[in-house]
Amino acid sequence: MAHLTLGLIQTDPNEDKQANVNSAIKLIGEAATAGAQFVALPETFHCRGPNEVKFATAEPIPGPLSTRLGEVALQHGIYLLAGSYNERVDDGDPRLFNTSLLFDPHGTAVAKYRKIHLFDVVIDGQVKAQESSRNRPGDQIVTAKTDYGTVGLSICYDLRFPEVYRALALRGATLTFVPSNFTLYTGKDHWEPLLRARAIENGMYIVAPATIGGGGGGFTAYGRSLVVDPWGTVLACAPDQVGVTLVTIDLNRVQKVRESLPSLAHRRPDVYTDT
Amino acid sequence: MAHLTLGLIQTDPNEDKQANVNSAIKLIGEAATAGAQFVALPETFHCRGPNEVKFATAEPIPGPLSTRLGEVALQHGIYLLAGSYNERVDDGDPRLFNTSLLFDPHGTAVAKYRKIHLFDVVIDGQVKAQESSRNRPGDQIVTAKTDYGTVGLSICYDLRFPEVYRALALRGATLTFVPSNFTLYTGKDHWEPLLRARAIENGMYIVAPATIGGGGGGFTAYGRSLVVDPWGTVLACAPDQVGVTLVTIDLNRVQKVRESLPSLAHRRPDVYTDT
Repeated sequence: MAHLTLGLIQTDPNEDKQANVNSAIKLIGEAATAGAQFVALPETFHCRGPNEVKFATAEPIPGPLSTRLGEVALQHGIYLLAGSYNERVDDGDPRLFNTSLLFDPHGTAVAKYRKIHLFDVVIDGQVKAQESSRNRPGDQIVTAKTDYGTVGLSICYDLRFPEVYRALALRGATLTFVPSNFTLYTGKDHWEPLLRARAIENGMYIVAPATIGGGGGGFTAYGRSLVVDPWGTVLACAPDQVGVTLVTIDLNRVQKVRESLPSLAHRRPDVYTDT
Repeated sequence: MAHLTLGLIQTDPNEDKQANVNSAIKLIGEAATAGAQFVALPETFHCRGPNEVKFATAEPIPGPLSTRLGEVALQHGIYLLAGSYNERVDDGDPRLFNTSLLFDPHGTAVAKYRKIHLFDVVIDGQVKAQESSRNRPGDQIVTAKTDYGTVGLSICYDLRFPEVYRALALRGATLTFVPSNFTLYTGKDHWEPLLRARAIENGMYIVAPATIGGGGGGFTAYGRSLVVDPWGTVLACAPDQVGVTLVTIDLNRVQKVRESLPSLAHRRPDVYTDT
């Protein structure tokens, strides 16, 4: 199967988890009906808001939301990347994980990724975020085998760490998701160059569904959900609204690009001894 | 000293080493006269052409060219980054190094970097390069302390390897040079996003003087010598011609950016175990 139709869902979640989830599921249906075989939601699609709302809307995994999302994937016969929502673990640590789930077309959760890098950033008058005040970090690089090749999982702030994408590529990822709730202030300067760099330096597709709008957090989100091919070309970009972005990609392009520009094979790990 | 005036030299070297070096030295003088305190030449400023010309124009270091460049730095009282030229070592291995030298205002070579990643890339009808047919790779990450902070050294194709720039940042570099002979075909898509990504993900200045034009190699060079600040903003870009690009940068900006966006401190080396 050389071609794959992706559906990226761009949403504007607020504090109302039920409404956010219903809205996301409606858009998943639209994407599937339009032909998407792999649908991807953004980070925190379930809810944005203050910490108390985050704690109140978190769930164990498996739990009601993961069950419902699996049913949606099965119903449409699609792969579904549930960008992220907050995972509660009853182990005595009250902090949540920021967790991404991947469902296969049978509705089975085939991968779970917990965000490794937490967004603790304060930029005067522009951005105020202290993700570690509610979340704890994951510590595992996660890939998953799918009918469309090995995919890599990551979330938003991870984008600033090339180590993550290098590790994913070395584990065989040919397409990596970056579901995000990226800020408008940083996004205007960092979103596209970093997404394109990750694609170029690893010769892989980068698929980044994003939130847009306010959401009651400490910043406005940038939107501009993006798909970048392994050469670094921006194949699709969402307009500034809630909705579905569809794009059909050529999976064979990964090998073609890596053959003509084999930088991944030119690495010198013998020299990178202190990073 | 919070401010630093950089002079980037963009040249179109051919097979005539003497003419290329004279032309570069003339432009260094123009940059210094215009106020540049740190002048940077591109990769292979001494010569571009087939392998036999490369072998014929290589020199030991120290050697006549390094002596002359040191005199130029001393004459103008500037730091001079001699982007790169080919270094011959009489150790039985006929292959050359692609070597960058940094001279201080006293004319002393204070750092020597040998390109780690060799450009072996063939893109049908666009690019044909087999650097390893004449050169051997270096194996050392190199930084140098200067009056303007610690600077990192790298060359052209190294840009595709985020590991290099991470290592330089972790060793204290706040400004890194990427003297290049980048191809037009790859440059149109990769030059700016990769340079900006290296600046953003490491919170450091990126200074990339480049060649332009044909030069008798297997490709046309992209030009567009670039200076990117630690936030990822393009502060200066050379027009499509041979000449000097001057830009004055605020050295305090590195700390400011790293304080507001402390991703360098948020690394998780415990997780990056297999890269």
